Amino acid sequence: MSSIWGRFFTVDIFGESHGPKIGVVLNGLAPGTVLDFPKIRAFLDRRRAGGEAWSTKRQETDDFELVSGYANGFSTGTPLCVLFHNAAQRSADYDERVNRPGHADYTGHVRYGGFNDPRGGGHFSGRLTAPLVFAGAVAAQVLAAKGVYTAVHIRRIADIEDAAFDPTDISREQAQRLSASRFPLLDESKREAMEERVRQAAAEGDSVGGVVECAVCGLPAGLGSPMMDSVESRLSSLLFAIPAVKGVSFGAGFRFAHMRGSEANDAYALRDGAVVTTTNHNGGVLGGITNGMPVVFEAVVKPTPSISKPQRTVNLSTMEEETVCVKGRHDACIVPRAAAVIDAAANICMLDLMTERGL
Amino acid sequence: MSSIWGRFFTVDIFGESHGPKIGVVLNGLAPGTVLDFPKIRAFLDRRRAGGEAWSTKRQETDDFELVSGYANGFSTGTPLCVLFHNAAQRSADYDERVNRPGHADYTGHVRYGGFNDPRGGGHFSGRLTAPLVFAGAVAAQVLAAKGVYTAVHIRRIADIEDAAFDPTDISREQAQRLSASRFPLLDESKREAMEERVRQAAAEGDSVGGVVECAVCGLPAGLGSPMMDSVESRLSSLLFAIPAVKGVSFGAGFRFAHMRGSEANDAYALRDGAVVTTTNHNGGVLGGITNGMPVVFEAVVKPTPSISKPQRTVNLSTMEEETVCVKGRHDACIVPRAAAVIDAAANICMLDLMTERGL
Amino acid sequence: MSSIWGRFFTVDIFGESHGPKIGVVLNGLAPGTVLDFPKIRAFLDRRRAGGEAWSTKRQETDDFELVSGYANGFSTGTPLCVLFHNAAQRSADYDERVNRPGHADYTGHVRYGGFNDPRGGGHFSGRLTAPLVFAGAVAAQVLAAKGVYTAVHIRRIADIEDAAFDPTDISREQAQRLSASRFPLLDESKREAMEERVRQAAAEGDSVGGVVECAVCGLPAGLGSPMMDSVESRLSSLLFAIPAVKGVSFGAGFRFAHMRGSEANDAYALRDGAVVTTTNHNGGVLGGITNGMPVVFEAVVKPTPSISKPQRTVNLSTMEEETVCVKGRHDACIVPRAAAVIDAAANICMLDLMTERGL
Amino acid sequence: MSSIWGRFFTVDIFGESHGPKIGVVLNGLAPGTVLDFPKIRAFLDRRRAGGEAWSTKRQETDDFELVSGYANGFSTGTPLCVLFHNAAQRSADYDERVNRPGHADYTGHVRYGGFNDPRGGGHFSGRLTAPLVFAGAVAAQVLAAKGVYTAVHIRRIADIEDAAFDPTDISREQAQRLSASRFPLLDESKREAMEERVRQAAAEGDSVGGVVECAVCGLPAGLGSPMMDSVESRLSSLLFAIPAVKGVSFGAGFRFAHMRGSEANDAYALRDGAVVTTTNHNGGVLGGITNGMPVVFEAVVKPTPSISKPQRTVNLSTMEEETVCVKGRHDACIVPRAAAVIDAAANICMLDLMTERGL
Repeated sequence: MSSIWGRFFTVDIFGESHGPKIGVVLNGLAPGTVLDFPKIRAFLDRRRAGGEAWSTKRQETDDFELVSGYANGFSTGTPLCVLFHNAAQRSADYDERVNRPGHADYTGHVRYGGFNDPRGGGHFSGRLTAPLVFAGAVAAQVLAAKGVYTAVHIRRIADIEDAAFDPTDISREQAQRLSASRFPLLDESKREAMEERVRQAAAEGDSVGGVVECAVCGLPAGLGSPMMDSVESRLSSLLFAIPAVKGVSFGAGFRFAHMRGSEANDAYALRDGAVVTTTNHNGGVLGGITNGMPVVFEAVVKPTPSISKPQRTVNLSTMEEETVCVKGRHDACIVPRAAAVIDAAANICMLDLMTERGL
Repeated sequence: MSSIWGRFFTVDIFGESHGPKIGVVLNGLAPGTVLDFPKIRAFLDRRRAGGEAWSTKRQETDDFELVSGYANGFSTGTPLCVLFHNAAQRSADYDERVNRPGHADYTGHVRYGGFNDPRGGGHFSGRLTAPLVFAGAVAAQVLAAKGVYTAVHIRRIADIEDAAFDPTDISREQAQRLSASRFPLLDESKREAMEERVRQAAAEGDSVGGVVECAVCGLPAGLGSPMMDSVESRLSSLLFAIPAVKGVSFGAGFRFAHMRGSEANDAYALRDGAVVTTTNHNGGVLGGITNGMPVVFEAVVKPTPSISKPQRTVNLSTMEEETVCVKGRHDACIVPRAAAVIDAAANICMLDLMTERGL
Repeated sequence: MSSIWGRFFTVDIFGESHGPKIGVVLNGLAPGTVLDFPKIRAFLDRRRAGGEAWSTKRQETDDFELVSGYANGFSTGTPLCVLFHNAAQRSADYDERVNRPGHADYTGHVRYGGFNDPRGGGHFSGRLTAPLVFAGAVAAQVLAAKGVYTAVHIRRIADIEDAAFDPTDISREQAQRLSASRFPLLDESKREAMEERVRQAAAEGDSVGGVVECAVCGLPAGLGSPMMDSVESRLSSLLFAIPAVKGVSFGAGFRFAHMRGSEANDAYALRDGAVVTTTNHNGGVLGGITNGMPVVFEAVVKPTPSISKPQRTVNLSTMEEETVCVKGRHDACIVPRAAAVIDAAANICMLDLMTERGL
Repeated sequence: MSSIWGRFFTVDIFGESHGPKIGVVLNGLAPGTVLDFPKIRAFLDRRRAGGEAWSTKRQETDDFELVSGYANGFSTGTPLCVLFHNAAQRSADYDERVNRPGHADYTGHVRYGGFNDPRGGGHFSGRLTAPLVFAGAVAAQVLAAKGVYTAVHIRRIADIEDAAFDPTDISREQAQRLSASRFPLLDESKREAMEERVRQAAAEGDSVGGVVECAVCGLPAGLGSPMMDSVESRLSSLLFAIPAVKGVSFGAGFRFAHMRGSEANDAYALRDGAVVTTTNHNGGVLGGITNGMPVVFEAVVKPTPSISKPQRTVNLSTMEEETVCVKGRHDACIVPRAAAVIDAAANICMLDLMTERGL
């Protein structure tokens, strides 16, 4: 029913891919916050298509316009609305009522009785993640002032795997280095092979998927609650709002199935008087609540469904089977761009949790 | 902050493991619903420990008492509250302020300033899933009358893997056969090896984890919404409320990372005039909305942290490091019982989604 | 759809007048709170019928049973559930499907398709205000420790008017004196005439209404928010949950219609370095936000619809017009008891607002 | 914390009086809705200042721009955002940090730590009711297609009282006639005296208040719920979001205090086979639920605090007492414009309630 997320720091996203404007309303941003706009633009740039091997050449203008909630160089504390103007819309590239497999064309059609805007995916478009990233960039600045920072990298593309975080020790420098890259990896030597997989798929009119790993560091212990308000519940509910995310796991995630309890349990120790765990298989969350260790999670990003190979579908106007070839410019791999969106979501969620506790 | 879940069919759970009573308040149950109590008890029995190889011998009495919302053999439409009386509490088995690795002892202590009830995990206890299963059993009955049913099985324990659902074709008979078992498997031949893994772990005072696969069949296309109210967002937020669930994925889940778009996209076809997909890698959800195919998901269940092996921890009273051995009766593998809870959660979420749309 | 109120301090009420138990689940109560049970009982006693001139002789047992959220003499921070056992149910006094004018019999019948429990009003019964008062008594204790206290009195019964609060100066002593009375008045000399009005109505099988005035003192400036989260919005939404409340106004309320802006505006002044207003026509709220002056409001309580005079109605079984005489024991004036419930609601709302701001 | 209202039809308002744009995001509007823009403009015109005796000459441009949720002449079903461009801002008219009595200057200053935008009231400005009226105009069109319509009139200005609705019989023609007027009255003969009161106050640099009466007709019985989700709770929570509304009552409202139960109870009768009440003192709501009679309520509108008479205040920069004279163009009576806003709020709330029940 709604495109609103959050209980204390609230994000309300609106717009369609080919409409005149998209945007977001933020509620709950502390008054007196000074936004660093170059940093926000840098965060948005990580999500923007850049015409690299993996991404579409569609030139989006991610210029934004603040229309409320910010005056005289400070947030006012009342709702902050930002607009993005859409541009470079080649609607003709889209056969408007094509029912593309793997996309939301059919489900959107059923859900909205055929009235949803089909051009470029409408409200279902990945374009809508731009305002989400804006919100995440704002949250990241607020969190940074509290000593909280995120690190994100591509954990896997196709069969090529990057190294994993050491979940007990992720430095701010490492986080900054990763966020400076449009293709963030722990082990840069894997980039060549990953890009090769993408190029191969692109050459065949196909696409590839991958996994993103993200860590939130510097959080206090005690955020979240048992059961329905667990950190995992709240973070996953936002991560699954990102198109193409089909799985979310915390800490060892699905590897827990292969572990013994004696391996999975993270032993406690004292370090400089503080309680820490010597391993972090539980991804910084126990009983739904942060334990002060980095909150580490993975999200799987399915291969973008926009492929030019012929596919079988059902035409929703004629209700007959047919073969479609999706035209237009597509990303062959959205994992690098999705990494920025997942990073943004993590920041939004953590600011919501921190605000709840008055931190 | 809260133990309330749901927007249209609302579940509010309360209680502690060793308190006198636990229970749940349901809001949004349609008036005039006739509950089949033997069926509810059968569902609860699937969650109950039975003293098998894998489960504790703690004898819980899962007798429940309806205190509101049900009169003259029908639901009234106003809030339905059910109570479970706790029994067989051997509090002496629990060293009250032990900080058990992998448990919520430390995070609960920080979150609640040391005031949470530590006996048996308090509000964090798996005991609290009994009222959740009650709610799920109620939801399942309402959904059954609408042609919706769930199927659930153990997908993996340790290194032993069961077969996977055919996600395009799961019969009601298959679902019923699975729900009749306390150790539901598609391939019964795997049971012996799985139980062996559990026994080995138990013999060593250890535990094992696993994966549960669940499918919801008979849903109409069009449930859910894009972005924040996606089916994945709502279902995952409830699944992660279940203690020990650390990962949730839909359809091909993390296997999407290894797939090409041409493999991952589910082609559409017509079957008896209805739109179907010929594969179901997307687990029945596209753009956050059901497409009429079974909603198929997996959840990983970490090995229960209750092990009797010695573990290093920090004593929260003395703030000194120490070694603990957790006493008491424990499950060596909670995957079979968790399967019932995950099934219940799926039913609760789907009734919430159906109610939203007036179905 | 729901009987849940609150965003930070949440109240979830369940039960029916003639069911076995009613109760409430509280979420968001700070851990480590020590409850003063005699004080809670004293608050409940103000709501309880006592067989005075104005109230029914139905002997309710307002004994309550804490079933969760309280251990070892402290709140745990996790959901607190309390139960009240119903007793003295003379269901035979109620002709079960009588459609009593002024009651919710007809609207409940339509809303719940005839399945709601009609005995004693079911979930619509004033009996359900007992758990609400429990919640309010808990909130009052938490607020008292923060220097916040409420004062409440009967402002009017029929044509007899009590004095009004001096809205700039309400002492804790005055508040305590009022809360010690089951018939709280500023001007005790009005009691005789008020009781006379009640006795007259009772003698004729009729009932009378009135107005309650309430003030919340000691609140900091800055609670609440503009627009949708105004103090007035949140408080009124809870006050209108109380059966029989049909109007709510703040400060001068409907008298504002007769005032000039120059009279209505409250001038600011400094007192001991603090900003105060020299009058308080706005009832302590400007732009939806507290200004540090007492929050003063009035609520009108309609004459209880339970009268024994013959009334015309439509029989919902036969769908024919008929005359009914409502049997059973009734209050001729529920204003004194409603005052306690309104007081409780004010406390609940203010704790919700204080908790939101981390106060 | 937030400027979001609604559970099923959601309104999220943003903007400041002197910012570049204000607007609203609507969630939950049914797809396929055709908006009648001239009708929306006509509704907005009723709220707009027109330079009459009672209203400011500030020329607002209430031109709006739809930026999402509407394509090809139909609502899409996904979030609908509309923007209003602010104009004619004479910020110099406002001494920016003046602490005007009766306004939110002080409370906003405290709430937002001095960072809120003070120009023209910022987010607290009555200007923000323009997007609220847009939302109400949309809701009114949807409701009209379902046979639901509202009627609104000025019930009182100062000591001059208009006639009251016959709450059992309000025709669509009467409703339309009232909505065609910028100064809606049942008894047009009262206009002269009302305008005279406004002119007198204006001449003295003062302002007057009043009461608005509104009715919603054609609603089905059965909307709303007992207790927390009562129609009164939900409607009042939105009405109190309107600046200057300080009291809300249903049906006989505060007159209930003077009534006997035998007068207040509305007798039931059958008319053309339908259950009706022969009077409507309860304003169409019993037990929080509609009974099929018009929902009738009154809201008191305080005299606008913007007066040019000298007033005593505390300067928030110097923290010293001082005398202020508020400059700028002001309405001497906002009751006529508030009537349109109250009408809008009633429509929004009722669409929310209808949508909840799938109607």
